[in-house]
Amino acid sequence: MMQIMGMRQKDTRSIGELTAPELEGETVKAEGAVHRVRNMGEIVFVVLRQAEGLLQTVFDKKSFEEAGDVREGCTIRVEGVLRREERAPHGVEIAVTAAEILSVSAGPLPLPIDKWKMGASLEARLDHRAVSLRNVRERARFRIQEGIVRGFRDFLYSQGFTEIHTPKIGAKGAEGGANIFKLSYFHRPAVLAQSPQFYKQMMVGVFDRVFETGPVFRAEKHNTRRHLNEYTSLDFEMGYIDGMEDVMGMETEMLRYVMGLLKREYGREVELLGIGVPEIASIPALRFDEAKRLVSETYGRPARAPFDLEPEEESLIGTYAKEKFGSDFVFITHYPSKKRPFYAMDDPEDSRYTLSFDLLYKGLEITTGGQRIHDYRMLMDKMEARGMTDEGMEGYLEAFRCGMPPHGGLGIGLERLTVQLLGEDNVREGCLFPRDMGRLTP
Amino acid sequence: MMQIMGMRQKDTRSIGELTAPELEGETVKAEGAVHRVRNMGEIVFVVLRQAEGLLQTVFDKKSFEEAGDVREGCTIRVEGVLRREERAPHGVEIAVTAAEILSVSAGPLPLPIDKWKMGASLEARLDHRAVSLRNVRERARFRIQEGIVRGFRDFLYSQGFTEIHTPKIGAKGAEGGANIFKLSYFHRPAVLAQSPQFYKQMMVGVFDRVFETGPVFRAEKHNTRRHLNEYTSLDFEMGYIDGMEDVMGMETEMLRYVMGLLKREYGREVELLGIGVPEIASIPALRFDEAKRLVSETYGRPARAPFDLEPEEESLIGTYAKEKFGSDFVFITHYPSKKRPFYAMDDPEDSRYTLSFDLLYKGLEITTGGQRIHDYRMLMDKMEARGMTDEGMEGYLEAFRCGMPPHGGLGIGLERLTVQLLGEDNVREGCLFPRDMGRLTP
Repeated sequence: MMQIMGMRQKDTRSIGELTAPELEGETVKAEGAVHRVRNMGEIVFVVLRQAEGLLQTVFDKKSFEEAGDVREGCTIRVEGVLRREERAPHGVEIAVTAAEILSVSAGPLPLPIDKWKMGASLEARLDHRAVSLRNVRERARFRIQEGIVRGFRDFLYSQGFTEIHTPKIGAKGAEGGANIFKLSYFHRPAVLAQSPQFYKQMMVGVFDRVFETGPVFRAEKHNTRRHLNEYTSLDFEMGYIDGMEDVMGMETEMLRYVMGLLKREYGREVELLGIGVPEIASIPALRFDEAKRLVSETYGRPARAPFDLEPEEESLIGTYAKEKFGSDFVFITHYPSKKRPFYAMDDPEDSRYTLSFDLLYKGLEITTGGQRIHDYRMLMDKMEARGMTDEGMEGYLEAFRCGMPPHGGLGIGLERLTVQLLGEDNVREGCLFPRDMGRLTP
Repeated sequence: MMQIMGMRQKDTRSIGELTAPELEGETVKAEGAVHRVRNMGEIVFVVLRQAEGLLQTVFDKKSFEEAGDVREGCTIRVEGVLRREERAPHGVEIAVTAAEILSVSAGPLPLPIDKWKMGASLEARLDHRAVSLRNVRERARFRIQEGIVRGFRDFLYSQGFTEIHTPKIGAKGAEGGANIFKLSYFHRPAVLAQSPQFYKQMMVGVFDRVFETGPVFRAEKHNTRRHLNEYTSLDFEMGYIDGMEDVMGMETEMLRYVMGLLKREYGREVELLGIGVPEIASIPALRFDEAKRLVSETYGRPARAPFDLEPEEESLIGTYAKEKFGSDFVFITHYPSKKRPFYAMDDPEDSRYTLSFDLLYKGLEITTGGQRIHDYRMLMDKMEARGMTDEGMEGYLEAFRCGMPPHGGLGIGLERLTVQLLGEDNVREGCLFPRDMGRLTP
């Protein structure tokens, strides 16, 4: 019998620890993956990759030979003297006196991950994802992504939201339509959740304010730079609102918090990637029809689809918001009712429009949200007018029959928000393992 | 054009605000769902439900009649004078001077949610989930669950882990076997992830330490009190370990942190539910064969399945750990190799066993983990010995071919951990919307 007390103290050091001034001249130990080997004959530079960055170690000929077959992809443990070296990453290096190979690689790497820019196509980087992400810039993007999700949650915790986990296998899709993955669930027809919409609304009746961060599935037959068939959705839903402006205000404040967190806690990655983290003083909001007209008038682009914003229109609205208001973000409100789901609250002043919104970031839709219908009769009437059946929705509708507060919420596409912040132009760059029409592996 | 600045300040108060002493005698506003109405003729007690708990409001006959049809399930906004009332929840009540109905309910509630114990069967509570969770004790369980997940993440952030989001649709299951949900992905065969196993291992080669909190899917044909077909898995994986004890130590310390967080931040729910939050000084660890023998000898129960622990054996091991070591938790280590997946590291001292473990909590397995094979040749040899094909696993295997640090990790069943902490005996009590062989809705 053994007793597990807790974490065992390691005698190896991280880069953060090694850069402390008092360690200069001391004998230290460190571990890492061999990122690059530069053999100069008498001395050999071995750059190690750790979670925090790169660490230069210097072997003399003898210690390098004694260590064995140290090559790219191996992981090793070194012991040596820490010294200042301005030309090394983080300004330090270890003059190795002894090294031990912890694990070996079995072949050459398919991509030059030690390059600042790998020069490989997106397809090649996705095909070899477990390797391409070892490039320090590639992986840094997902540290930024972590910061976004962490900030989203921490801000909402602070505002009295409760985190929920809702099922991804269900009987009916929340958004309807054909874009649903189907599966057999113990010989019963089932679908994968397009969004946690029904569940988060039901849970507003329980916790008043809820959020979820999790996967959603869309069987859309679009293979564009903006679409993924599985993505991470950041959802919240809040009760006792006076209007959709409360939801928009909560999102504005959340984004401001996230950007602050990125600057405070993810400065290393922000700098590495050269990200311009936006200051969010306020976010302008334009009505759908107003935005459509402005784009048409300002940029001479005739509006074609009357009930939708085409991608090019969204892009131009983003340009307009930047030029006119100095804002990377712009809300578009009052989308046409016929293009919004049945649960969207129609504008009482003009029922052709809804009290709903999108948020565009640098001209790309990253959020859809709005006020929802909370009244049972109104909801049933709207479903009936659309010729919908309530099959598989009994639990959702019961929540409304038993009373629901006025409420609204939104869903944010995490990968889209990530790539817009990064300044990348393909949503796949913001996803560790993208799923699209052509890609099911790795 | 409108500018969204941030959150709008509400003039209504939460229970937390209303219990501040300086508000006594002041006119205040509050909102909530009508949880219970007790009409005494001259005065009417209307108890409101908010996220934080219950709030008593008192109407006189006139103000109640003027308010309209205030009944259970409506949501209302009240204005009135705050006063001390020791018999009311939280020691305060509002003497209402004006009230406004925000939303109405359309029918009676199917369950007596205002009762301390609803007296409804689990099936009835799950059938009417959006309503049964409005019971303050039912919903409190999921605040505790929030605390567990939050503590898991916050602790791992502090230890240099990176949060990842990995795909739930893939080409091949990590655990293999028949318990896989299949679907058609644009006319290609695909499966739902049984665990993020492959991906979190691949990401150890990138970030050194990673975690994920997300859904996993198991098509197990077990309809027991311990099984769900979709559950939330708390997974972490860490590189540069010296042995599985590092993983067990990290889990021990994480659980200690979680229990501390629950006491600090979720005291209201801990008290409401009467939870005995365990103090975790250390966690005893027994070898699989030793645990089997001890149970057989101590409780006179003959061991039947030689390579597995039967549920009753796990339960008795839990009893043994409590009696002998005073611990609700006990690690079982060195599971037989033939019952562990191919990626488990065999014990170099006896390859019939693995360097793997389960964690039992009050006699129920809540965690499976261990050290993994990191060497490419060893991994390929073990796959070959098991007659496995590498189809659909190319990306996983490439990570090893290009070198992986020694590593290990674990997965925790969130719902199981929740119900064991709550002292409930069915895992469905720890899931908002359980999915089992018979249940696909709500």
